[in-house]
Amino acid sequence: MNYDNNNIFARIIRGELPCIKVYEDADTLAFMDIMPQMPGHLLVLPKAPAVTLYQLPDDALLSCMQTIKKVGKALQTAMAVEGSTLVQHNGSYAGQSVPHVHFHIIPGPLKGLKPHAEISGDKTEIEAIAARIRDCLAE
Amino acid sequence: MNYDNNNIFARIIRGELPCIKVYEDADTLAFMDIMPQMPGHLLVLPKAPAVTLYQLPDDALLSCMQTIKKVGKALQTAMAVEGSTLVQHNGSYAGQSVPHVHFHIIPGPLKGLKPHAEISGDKTEIEAIAARIRDCLAE
Repeated sequence: MNYDNNNIFARIIRGELPCIKVYEDADTLAFMDIMPQMPGHLLVLPKAPAVTLYQLPDDALLSCMQTIKKVGKALQTAMAVEGSTLVQHNGSYAGQSVPHVHFHIIPGPLKGLKPHAEISGDKTEIEAIAARIRDCLAE
Repeated sequence: MNYDNNNIFARIIRGELPCIKVYEDADTLAFMDIMPQMPGHLLVLPKAPAVTLYQLPDDALLSCMQTIKKVGKALQTAMAVEGSTLVQHNGSYAGQSVPHVHFHIIPGPLKGLKPHAEISGDKTEIEAIAARIRDCLAE
């Protein structure tokens, strides 16, 4: 599958669209899902252009995993929970909604989640959670 | 959380318990989930002892991701589907059923899955799928 340079996540990475950011480094970006399946639902993306995990070079993939470890731990602390689940869809057939590889971090189990990419969350509540995660990252 | 050297996946890694293996290298092991949430449900594990992703050193984590890319693509070919979903639970609170870090690869979306770690699959059917995945890996 060819990469679309104008997909919504490519535009967020370039700063053309806003996001509720919790972490950024040279290779990755982490921000809140604005259609959270549960409170605290986070996304981690490589900046490298790739549609799926299978197209992502190892160095970019390792950078993602390092960011996931960092922000996932902060997410658990921020939400005061003792676990989290990583989910990553490859291909629209498998439920991928934006064609730029991205990892979901859910602060809990997959049971009882809201549907994927369907219902917008409350922006004020999401901003408040993001602030707590950023605080935990800074500790 | 302390690592339990006698958890079921540690025993599979040591060869003390059987598994329906599709791939193994020095650092990782991939085998069929015997309680598949859908046909083709695969597991990828690091051999390094760690309960969660957050405890797994970067080198072992990268090895896992390399194996996931390899076997996930073969899984898609073997099941003749155009996508797959990666799921990884950290902590029993989040639905982790065996306390050794493991990645689930599901050949499709998360909708309509059977429950996690509850219903044993048909061993003959699982063996047949594993053989197809191994064939795809060998191509």
